[in-house]
Amino acid sequence: MKQNVQTLKGFRDFLPGEARRRQYVQNLLKKVFESYGFEPLETPALEYEEILLGKYGDEGDKLMYRFEDNGGRRVALRYDQTVPLARVAAQYQSQLPIPFKRYQIQPVWRAENPQKGRFREFLQCDIDIVGSSSPLSDAEIIACTIQSLEKLGFKDAKVLINDRALFSQLITRTAISEKELPGVIRILDKLKKIGREGVVDELGKMGFGSERATYILQTVESYPPTLVLQTIFASLEKMGIPKEKYEFSPTLARGLDYYTGIIFEAEIAGYTAGSVAGGGRYDNLIGIFGGQSIPAVGVAFGFDRIIEAMSQLDLFPKDLATAKVLVTVFSPELAEKSLEAGSRLRSNNINTEVWLDSGGKLDKQLKYADQKGIPYVLIIGPEEAEKDTVTLKDLQAKSQETLKLEEVIATIKGDG
Amino acid sequence: MKQNVQTLKGFRDFLPGEARRRQYVQNLLKKVFESYGFEPLETPALEYEEILLGKYGDEGDKLMYRFEDNGGRRVALRYDQTVPLARVAAQYQSQLPIPFKRYQIQPVWRAENPQKGRFREFLQCDIDIVGSSSPLSDAEIIACTIQSLEKLGFKDAKVLINDRALFSQLITRTAISEKELPGVIRILDKLKKIGREGVVDELGKMGFGSERATYILQTVESYPPTLVLQTIFASLEKMGIPKEKYEFSPTLARGLDYYTGIIFEAEIAGYTAGSVAGGGRYDNLIGIFGGQSIPAVGVAFGFDRIIEAMSQLDLFPKDLATAKVLVTVFSPELAEKSLEAGSRLRSNNINTEVWLDSGGKLDKQLKYADQKGIPYVLIIGPEEAEKDTVTLKDLQAKSQETLKLEEVIATIKGDG
Repeated sequence: MKQNVQTLKGFRDFLPGEARRRQYVQNLLKKVFESYGFEPLETPALEYEEILLGKYGDEGDKLMYRFEDNGGRRVALRYDQTVPLARVAAQYQSQLPIPFKRYQIQPVWRAENPQKGRFREFLQCDIDIVGSSSPLSDAEIIACTIQSLEKLGFKDAKVLINDRALFSQLITRTAISEKELPGVIRILDKLKKIGREGVVDELGKMGFGSERATYILQTVESYPPTLVLQTIFASLEKMGIPKEKYEFSPTLARGLDYYTGIIFEAEIAGYTAGSVAGGGRYDNLIGIFGGQSIPAVGVAFGFDRIIEAMSQLDLFPKDLATAKVLVTVFSPELAEKSLEAGSRLRSNNINTEVWLDSGGKLDKQLKYADQKGIPYVLIIGPEEAEKDTVTLKDLQAKSQETLKLEEVIATIKGDG
Repeated sequence: MKQNVQTLKGFRDFLPGEARRRQYVQNLLKKVFESYGFEPLETPALEYEEILLGKYGDEGDKLMYRFEDNGGRRVALRYDQTVPLARVAAQYQSQLPIPFKRYQIQPVWRAENPQKGRFREFLQCDIDIVGSSSPLSDAEIIACTIQSLEKLGFKDAKVLINDRALFSQLITRTAISEKELPGVIRILDKLKKIGREGVVDELGKMGFGSERATYILQTVESYPPTLVLQTIFASLEKMGIPKEKYEFSPTLARGLDYYTGIIFEAEIAGYTAGSVAGGGRYDNLIGIFGGQSIPAVGVAFGFDRIIEAMSQLDLFPKDLATAKVLVTVFSPELAEKSLEAGSRLRSNNINTEVWLDSGGKLDKQLKYADQKGIPYVLIIGPEEAEKDTVTLKDLQAKSQETLKLEEVIATIKGDG
């Protein structure tokens, strides 16, 4: 029976080429996270609905995948990794080290309207420090963000940093009302996108005359960093983070509900789709299940955006192919020679495929190597078998040599 | 508001200690898979219900997590990785290399009755070769299984191999009926578990006299390997797989519905909970969505069993901790010295935590290192700061030395 086959809208298959890139990014990120002592955490895809419900606002409740399981329990699919972290912090309180430094890289599900760059299943990639209110923790999260982006190959990444505490000064210093503050902040946050004139213009729509609007903007822009920010900048310097990698940005806001202290965002020069990482301090969220306040600071990497930015900036290694060599099979009688050669290459830590048929046209085998991006092809025909040599084809250089197997091993290893 | 916090029955959190072990196993397996040129594939957690329904028998339909999404679509959570592979094979037919060698390591969900070693969310770990009917592919899957178990540290792993074709000979050679065959095979499959007498006994319950039952058993046991098996064994030898790692086992059956050719199972001496990997050739499944038959052979690793067996046999490295060193902070004034030392260690590829508070009792910091399994602690007090030295504590050896930072780096690197 022939059946209609397709994936659900907003869901994706990752075929090997794409899956390898995703693994490459995950592996590099994990390496940096672990270099700072962050440890992996995994939580289940399904939680009791009541654990997640009401934690992400009305929008979240609407977009959440929720259903009744076979046992009549109301369950929901993971919507982010922060609420599960809060559950873990409450549930295993006595077992976790304080501070608890964890990273988590798992898919989440949101029934969003699918559109460019927005999916219903996507990978979240978070690091958080739970249980420390020290600015050293803020600095570590920022340093780890900067080094992660550097490790991925982004040369012109910059982290913009602000402290939410700054905004409260606006009320006394520019005489705006508490009620007006959120609107003002939301407009200031758009400075990079809409420019100074745009900000003054939008503040105008809120009822501020252009002189007053300009004054508000100038006041914010001229704020000096808070004491916490100064401590963080000093720590970053001591940690050897170059000054051009971060910047105080007094207009940065990143929404208002969630964060309670410093906030930051990473942008990549030449990539305009948005920030590739963002985070800050949020001292009121992790405690929700335990009934006590627990300080926390963290960063979320935009995994899909990172993949997109790296593709655009050509930062993926050329030879991410799984195998370095395809050993062809010339004929049924010579198959065993190919199997032996394959094993020798593998035991020398060279990822090697052996053609999985006892014969078959060489053309077909070469095409297979080409399709999979395998850079080298090894041929063992009757002549090579007799002289105990092999022919090594370099598919990119379109060259070939007849060599001893040891020489092949040296050549390929030398090639990285 | 204090809320009740728990995970759903049959679902698990993996705290860092356990999550690291799982990562360790996954990384080693991926390395072996990639050494053979297997490539990663990822498919979505949710599929259209009709893709999965009816593919796993009545039991599967019952245990599957199925629901209606917000858009009124009937959807189901991934139940295994083979049906999604079949969908991928049909959907991307023209893009995939033939043979298509993929590995896939993703969670699946089954609403089973939770019991020891059985979970509702668990990781599947599969490699398959799609589009090749060559015994070389069978041999490669078996070789890769053996080398994977070896890489994980299992010294006494053995793969039992059989060919389903053998069983059809039973009808002519022992005069049992086609109808009796499945029952007979199911009993023969239990030989390892219930012994020869048990087999004869159970055949007796089917109506075979003890003489006839013994004859049936002896007939099967005396079967020579089929031609396909002989080719596979010859290939394994050429691939350098030691003979004691595998064994022809004519009574092995592994269920009947799914497999169409060779079948195999890996067992670990000293681990009695069951086989840790199993697979075989299944030529009728991958084609279901495309309306054409596509040959395939593969193996599924029992991820949870592997973790359990490795724990029992003590095969995990002692120092799977994320960080090698904790740099303590003596006082606010000396915090910067600790930050600098931390960065230097990290830039020498030593995973390093810096205590995230500018001060705090040394006892508390040492306890933290101990709790996280961090083997070394670095102390920079006023004396050390002045002399430009550090004190390195080895927590396990309960020893300490005053050293230059370069010496610390050499010591820790030398320790692996």
